[in-house]
Amino acid sequence: MQNNKIIIFDTTLRDGEQSPGASMNIEEKVAVALQLERLGVDVIEAGFAASSEGDFESISQISKQVKTSTICSLSRCVESDILRAKDSLQYAKKSRIHLFLATSPIHMEYKLKKKPNEVLELAIRSITMAKEFCDDIQFSCEDACRSDIGFLKEISLGAIEAGAKTLNMPDTVGYRLPHEIGNIIEELYKVVQDRAILSVHCHNDLGQAVSNSIYGIMKGARQVECTINGLGERAGNCALEEVVMILKTRKDIFTQYGGLDTNIHTKEIYRTSNLVSDITGIRPQPNKAIVGKNAFSHESGIHQDGILKHRETYEIMTPSDIGIMNNENLVLGKHSGRAAFKDKIEQLGYQLESSMLNQIFEKFKILCDQKKVVYDEDLLALISEQNSYIPQVFTLESIQCSTSSNGSHVAALSVKRDNELFNDCALGNGSVDSILRAIERVCNIGGKLLDYKVESVTRGKDAMANVMVKVDFAESGSPVIGHGKDLDTLHATAKAYINALNSFERMKKFLGPKNSYKQGV
Amino acid sequence: MQNNKIIIFDTTLRDGEQSPGASMNIEEKVAVALQLERLGVDVIEAGFAASSEGDFESISQISKQVKTSTICSLSRCVESDILRAKDSLQYAKKSRIHLFLATSPIHMEYKLKKKPNEVLELAIRSITMAKEFCDDIQFSCEDACRSDIGFLKEISLGAIEAGAKTLNMPDTVGYRLPHEIGNIIEELYKVVQDRAILSVHCHNDLGQAVSNSIYGIMKGARQVECTINGLGERAGNCALEEVVMILKTRKDIFTQYGGLDTNIHTKEIYRTSNLVSDITGIRPQPNKAIVGKNAFSHESGIHQDGILKHRETYEIMTPSDIGIMNNENLVLGKHSGRAAFKDKIEQLGYQLESSMLNQIFEKFKILCDQKKVVYDEDLLALISEQNSYIPQVFTLESIQCSTSSNGSHVAALSVKRDNELFNDCALGNGSVDSILRAIERVCNIGGKLLDYKVESVTRGKDAMANVMVKVDFAESGSPVIGHGKDLDTLHATAKAYINALNSFERMKKFLGPKNSYKQGV
Repeated sequence: MQNNKIIIFDTTLRDGEQSPGASMNIEEKVAVALQLERLGVDVIEAGFAASSEGDFESISQISKQVKTSTICSLSRCVESDILRAKDSLQYAKKSRIHLFLATSPIHMEYKLKKKPNEVLELAIRSITMAKEFCDDIQFSCEDACRSDIGFLKEISLGAIEAGAKTLNMPDTVGYRLPHEIGNIIEELYKVVQDRAILSVHCHNDLGQAVSNSIYGIMKGARQVECTINGLGERAGNCALEEVVMILKTRKDIFTQYGGLDTNIHTKEIYRTSNLVSDITGIRPQPNKAIVGKNAFSHESGIHQDGILKHRETYEIMTPSDIGIMNNENLVLGKHSGRAAFKDKIEQLGYQLESSMLNQIFEKFKILCDQKKVVYDEDLLALISEQNSYIPQVFTLESIQCSTSSNGSHVAALSVKRDNELFNDCALGNGSVDSILRAIERVCNIGGKLLDYKVESVTRGKDAMANVMVKVDFAESGSPVIGHGKDLDTLHATAKAYINALNSFERMKKFLGPKNSYKQGV
Repeated sequence: MQNNKIIIFDTTLRDGEQSPGASMNIEEKVAVALQLERLGVDVIEAGFAASSEGDFESISQISKQVKTSTICSLSRCVESDILRAKDSLQYAKKSRIHLFLATSPIHMEYKLKKKPNEVLELAIRSITMAKEFCDDIQFSCEDACRSDIGFLKEISLGAIEAGAKTLNMPDTVGYRLPHEIGNIIEELYKVVQDRAILSVHCHNDLGQAVSNSIYGIMKGARQVECTINGLGERAGNCALEEVVMILKTRKDIFTQYGGLDTNIHTKEIYRTSNLVSDITGIRPQPNKAIVGKNAFSHESGIHQDGILKHRETYEIMTPSDIGIMNNENLVLGKHSGRAAFKDKIEQLGYQLESSMLNQIFEKFKILCDQKKVVYDEDLLALISEQNSYIPQVFTLESIQCSTSSNGSHVAALSVKRDNELFNDCALGNGSVDSILRAIERVCNIGGKLLDYKVESVTRGKDAMANVMVKVDFAESGSPVIGHGKDLDTLHATAKAYINALNSFERMKKFLGPKNSYKQGV
């Protein structure tokens, strides 16, 4: 008899981080892991220990700090990888080693250059070794969904024999349609039964990752691998929020399958989505299901009218199901006291230490003088700015810019490092360029700007600007992301660049050569 | 015997435009329609004639200009709506009237306040009337997927009898899973057979719109209603590009269904996606399937290695399938002549009149002086800026800004209107705010800024800034979008605001009261 609990395996920190430009530093990864724990994720794939020093250190830090979720490291079927995985997980309360090996003819022939019997033997040998260090072993058949079903059955049985408890079947290239994934899982379930958990890991190249996962579940999969916002290489992975909300909203369907359920606290979904998009700079499109900005808004008159008459005419979920607060709420004004302010912050879901609370309260007072209306989002922006995950090596003290359409753009600024003030100015091809050049002069560093974005937080001309920069300082191929928020766009730009610089300072010690064998199952 | 052609019905201009903030002006709608025609769309739903003067005029203009695609107007089952639809379509080479009426118990009871037999009778009466003016009638059962299947069969047969040629079954609230849509279509096909085309129209609230459409097709639907980039209310509609690329990439599956195919020229997909996202300001997320920025990029070493060894290890489609050019191509330098420049523009797919070409060539020369590397994207930015769809009532002549972290932000600018120059300056809460206030002073207008975004075109510190503003000038609830591109972000901001102002001038004459009964089928 099958279990009716669907295990949510989140790989935002491993497969998700492989999205071009989504790399996170260690502190950011720890922050995401702690939020995933609050969300109720069963297994957090924290990285690929052998791929870099940074990945090893992240897994290690996350293992120390997360208490309830299982922490997992990816590992090739290679002895040295398995040992690194084991070491990275030594502090975890619950740990899992995730081994993978390709099983499709095309991958075995062209990538591994191995025969099926060699692949089978290597898998068994690796699982047996990993099992010495860790009881919870997962084995993935890379490119399972283009593999021979007979071979998948054979290797699955071998893996179970060797000690694997979870068998994962990735659709590595995102090629399959839902009924095909259903068929593969149905066939495998016939031989695997309940001796191991069958798992699906679907990519989204044809936009089918979520449907594919759901049809895998219907046919016997009891673990879904997914990421927040569907982050991941190319078109990404299965989106956690969509799978979870389908299971919740369509309980009527899943009753036939034994009343399937997850451990996810759906009211943490929105907060988790925002955290991941703030850190990676990759924002879901407005029409993204569940977490897009428009996902719950009704533009047309007929819909609005229908909703006023009877909620269910057009609404199958409510924003509060995923933890969206009424975001047009006016907040306290400039005369509000500290106690009322603290109450509001707690309503927003934050428990801050009193020194942090005081700092944010001071900034709030300043903002009240500059801005007519202070929204919840403005407060959240202040919190996220203050709540930085990295040490402030450089801080921006002041900035002045002047720009003219005749082509003259100049920026002057003061930056503090170790209590010493440095000033300089620079010309540029535009106002943003002049600011970046001035910062580089002052801080004596050169960087390559890979991406620059500005969004407004809240509405109106006095909305705060939220600037994201992506910069490659070391030409190392490991770009860092910086964020800055301010009422003035140029000031926010300078803050964002300084923030990126601080991130870079922080990550320098992990900047050893990154192995080239990250992979995407 | 069923036809094996899948009719692509695009509703970007009707349901897509109902995305919050996606409203387009008439010239923009015409530009999109002409591109949809190049893409090979069979039916273009150009609007909802009775909903506003602007919608009526757009349908009318599009009917005049589009030659090969069928032009469609939405209409309630109301006599005055049908007459407006007819009038708006009078110049169309091929026209369709699209009637809709709700058939689900919840909609009939709470929204229409009608009994099923009244609904049936009203549908038949409306179809019969519309049929007098137009041979090609489509009837939609709003909220079909929560309707009683017996009633759906009854109303379908009545609609066919009255003359409807297409029967559309919307999943209005995006509630269904793929096999459920398949079941509904399968049941209906039993009674409808080939006497009408069955159509699916799926919303994406649970992320299932595309899969649902595909499973409708497998069970007999021969029309798919969709939008570019999956635009639409809430989580949007079925994404055209995903449905089309599934049919193309998975020919092996659809052979079982008679070798299904569409008339879409897939190489126009990317261009169409860009046009729609430029105009609406709604950009697909990087991990959006098919058209996202990362959809074809491979970050991980193992993937890159696999691709070098054998393309198909990780790639099921190629970027050129959807018309993506190698976008890191360096372009001509400052010494390039007009002929080489013209060649390049034509390679990029543009046939420009020679006066337009000359103007862009001049701008290109200026850009070469300012910027180390001019990419294809920079050229495309110049073209789209020049190729504005609206008359230039106001033009920006010059701008100067100064900003300081002590809180002083000032902008001064000159704007030309009817060959007369106006100058003024203003202080603001930030540099962007000071610019907007200065423009408002100079142009004597007040606006409410609803959204502000900056993205970089290409990379590097000398990348062009692409600014999008969304402004409500008339407090009319009809926001306009403006775009501006420049090497300097502030200059681009001013251009974008002036562009929005010009759009507003253009739309003033259609600013009659918009009826409140737009709807979403």
